Amino acid sequence: MALIVQKYGGSSVADAESIKRVAKRIVETRKAGNDVVVAVSAMGDTTDELLDLAAAVTPIEAPRELDMLMTAGERISMALLAMAIKGLGVDAQSFTGSQAGVVTNATHGAARIVEVSPRRVKEAVAAGAVAIVAGFQGFSKETAEVTTLGRGGSDTTAVALAASLDADVCEIYTDVDGIFTADPRQVPLARKLDAITSEEMLELAASGAKVLHLRAVEFARRHGVTLHVRSSFSDQTGTIVYDPANGIPEGVNMEESIINGIASEKNEAKITVVGVPDAPGRAAAIFDIVGRADVNVDMIVQNVSRADTASTDISFTVPVADGRRVIELLKNHGDVIEYSSLQYDDQIAKIAVVGAGMRTNAGVSAKLFRALYEAGINIDMISTSEIRISVVTRADVLDKALQALHTAFGLDADTEAVVYAGTGR
Amino acid sequence: MALIVQKYGGSSVADAESIKRVAKRIVETRKAGNDVVVAVSAMGDTTDELLDLAAAVTPIEAPRELDMLMTAGERISMALLAMAIKGLGVDAQSFTGSQAGVVTNATHGAARIVEVSPRRVKEAVAAGAVAIVAGFQGFSKETAEVTTLGRGGSDTTAVALAASLDADVCEIYTDVDGIFTADPRQVPLARKLDAITSEEMLELAASGAKVLHLRAVEFARRHGVTLHVRSSFSDQTGTIVYDPANGIPEGVNMEESIINGIASEKNEAKITVVGVPDAPGRAAAIFDIVGRADVNVDMIVQNVSRADTASTDISFTVPVADGRRVIELLKNHGDVIEYSSLQYDDQIAKIAVVGAGMRTNAGVSAKLFRALYEAGINIDMISTSEIRISVVTRADVLDKALQALHTAFGLDADTEAVVYAGTGR
Repeated sequence: MALIVQKYGGSSVADAESIKRVAKRIVETRKAGNDVVVAVSAMGDTTDELLDLAAAVTPIEAPRELDMLMTAGERISMALLAMAIKGLGVDAQSFTGSQAGVVTNATHGAARIVEVSPRRVKEAVAAGAVAIVAGFQGFSKETAEVTTLGRGGSDTTAVALAASLDADVCEIYTDVDGIFTADPRQVPLARKLDAITSEEMLELAASGAKVLHLRAVEFARRHGVTLHVRSSFSDQTGTIVYDPANGIPEGVNMEESIINGIASEKNEAKITVVGVPDAPGRAAAIFDIVGRADVNVDMIVQNVSRADTASTDISFTVPVADGRRVIELLKNHGDVIEYSSLQYDDQIAKIAVVGAGMRTNAGVSAKLFRALYEAGINIDMISTSEIRISVVTRADVLDKALQALHTAFGLDADTEAVVYAGTGR
Repeated sequence: MALIVQKYGGSSVADAESIKRVAKRIVETRKAGNDVVVAVSAMGDTTDELLDLAAAVTPIEAPRELDMLMTAGERISMALLAMAIKGLGVDAQSFTGSQAGVVTNATHGAARIVEVSPRRVKEAVAAGAVAIVAGFQGFSKETAEVTTLGRGGSDTTAVALAASLDADVCEIYTDVDGIFTADPRQVPLARKLDAITSEEMLELAASGAKVLHLRAVEFARRHGVTLHVRSSFSDQTGTIVYDPANGIPEGVNMEESIINGIASEKNEAKITVVGVPDAPGRAAAIFDIVGRADVNVDMIVQNVSRADTASTDISFTVPVADGRRVIELLKNHGDVIEYSSLQYDDQIAKIAVVGAGMRTNAGVSAKLFRALYEAGINIDMISTSEIRISVVTRADVLDKALQALHTAFGLDADTEAVVYAGTGR
C-alpha cells in the first residue's frame, strides 16, 4: 500500500461539479488501495473575490487580517471536498494548516514552513480516512497567528506534507498535462516531458516556468520528494520530477536530450549603472543596497573596464514591479556608489535553456547563439550556470526566439499541445 | 471608561459598504472613550451560499465538515471588519471563536458554550485595539474540533463575551429599532419598548419573538448581562433588557404596563392523544417517549377525566417540523401508552401575552378572554406561567387576534412602526 499526497489547485475545485470530479478521483486512488492525503487550494476565483472585498473595505494594508481573510478560502474548499468524498462512501476529514501541524515563521503573506507535525493527519489516515489539508496556510508558534505561504503556497504545502509523511509520491494536479519543453501557449509544438530531474526543474522554475513554483521544487529536492505533475482533467500520466541521487523512479526512462526545457520571463527590467569606478567593493555596494530592499536580483553582467576612464558598466535584471524602486534607491545612494548615469529598460525578455546534459556536452552555447543569430535576434545579456544558459533579448522577439531555440535543440513535437484555460494558486 | 460588547448580525455587514458603516460606528464608540469588543456574524447571504454549495456537493450530512465550512463565513466578515476599522485609524484585531477562547461542548451544529477564556481578546483591548470576535462559533477542548452554536449563535457569543469580560453593556445591533410590543409586520401599531425585564424577554423569545434568541436571553439573565437591542441603521436608542435584581440601569423608567409584549408562533402543531386510560404514569409515558426523540414539547393540556370511560385526552404542541415524527413514535408505542386515536392539527397559532405586571394585577386573563371573544375568536388551548398567558387559536385568525389583544391591553402606538428588511443569524 502506498501513501500518496495529491495537490489540487483552484481551477480543479472551481465549483461544486469540479469538487465532485476531484472527489471521485481521490476515491479511486483510495479504493486502489492507497492511503491518500490531499492539499487543496481555494475554489477558483475565491482568492480574487476576497482580495476585492478587502480593497473595497480599506486601502490600507493589514497583513494579519488579510491572512485571516484569505485562509477562509481553503477552509471552504477543503470542507466541501471532504463532504463530497464522504458522499461517495469513503471517510474523509479536513484540516486547516494549523490543525495539520504546518508550522511557519511569523511573516504574514509570505510565511516559510519551519516544520510539519501532521499528528492529526496521520491519525485520520490510520483510521482509514482521506485527510484533506488546506493548502497555502500555516500558523506561527511564535505569535500564535494564522499565516499564508504566498505564491505557490499550496504546492509547497503538498510537498511539505509528502516529506513529513514520507509519502511515496506527491501528485501535483494542475490544468496542464505536465511539464512541457516550453510553454505551449508560446511554442505550439512544445512536448510534454515524461520525466525531468529536480535540478533541471529548479532551473526552469527559477527562469519563469509557471507550472511548479520554485519554492515547492526546492522543498521537494531538499527533502527527496518525487513529484508527479499531471492534469486533473485527464487520466494521462504527467511528468515525474525526481532526483537521480535517490534512484530512478519506476517507469522513468532517463531522457537522452541535452536540453530538456526552455523557460522565459517577460516581467523583468534591466538596469544599467553606467560609469562605476573600477575599484574593489563597488559592485558589492550596489547589490548590498538593492538586497537590503528585498529585491530579487537575477542576472548580473559587468562589462570589462574601459581603460580610458578606469570605469565599468554594471547591468542586472530585477522584477519589473521593483524596477522603479531600485532606480530611486540607486539615485538616493549616489554618494556611496558613484556612477555617471542610470539606464532603465523594461522591454526585455529573459530566456533560459535548461538541461543536465549540458555538463557532458560541449557546444551547447555555440548552438544557442547560432540559432538566435540565424533568426536575426540580438542578445543583450548572457549568464550561465552548470546546466542552464540564460540570455536577455528584446521583448518583442521573445516568441520567435523561443521557437528558434525549441527547433534548434530538437524539442519540437509532431503535433501541437492541448492548452487548457485557468490557473491555480 | 466603559467596556462595551457590540454584536452585528449578517444584515448589518452584508457588503463592503455596510462593513464600512459598521466600522464607523465602532470607531465612534471607541473614540468616545470606550473599550469595544465586537461579535460579528457572517456577511448577509454567505451562510445560505455555503449551505447551497454543501448541498450541491453531496446530499449526506457531515456535521464536522459542515461546521468547518460555516465558520469560514465569520472568518471573512471579521477580517474585513478589522481591516475597515484599521483603515479608519483605530487598531483592531479579529479572533476566531477558538482564538477568543469560546469553549463549547462537542455537538456540531448546535454546540453549547461551556466557558469563555478570552485571554487574547483582553490583551488586544488592553493594548488599545478593538477586538472583533467571530460569532456563532467555538471549539471543543474534548475533541479539538471547531463547532458552531446553531440558531442565534452570534447573539450568544456576544452575551458570553460580555459576561466573561464583565462588560458594562452588550449592544445587539439588528435590523429593527428594538423590542416591540408585537411584531410590527403583524401589528402595524406595535410600539418600541424603552426597556423590558430579562424575565419578560425570556417569555417573549420562548413564545416566538424573533429579535433576540432564547439562548442568548437565558445566558444574559443567568450571568447578569444587560442587553441593549438597537438598530445598526440608525442612532436611536433601542430597548434595554435588564434584570431588576441587579438594579435599574441608568435612564430606564420602570414601565407601568401590566403587559409588555405579545408574541406569536405559527410553526407549531397540536397533537391530541384521545382516550388515554386515566391512570398514574400514562402522561409520563407519552412525554418520556417524545422527550427521548429530542422534540421540544410546548403546551400540554389534559382534559378532565370522562367518568363513563375512565379515560382522558391529552393535547400538546410540538414544532411542525417534528409533528409527523411524533405521530409515528406514538403509533409505534401504542402498546405502552394505550389510546383510542390520535389527532394531528398544524393549522394552529400560538399567542402569548407577557408582562411582569401580571403578578400583581388580577383580571389579566379575563381581559384576554373577553378581547378574543369580542373579536369572535375561539380558544383551543390555554396555558399560563407567572408572567405569561398563552393561548392556541386557529392559524387563519392570528393577525386579528394579535390586533385585538394589542388594543385591549393598551399597547397601540399613535403611528405605525417602520419595518426594515433582512435578517441576521
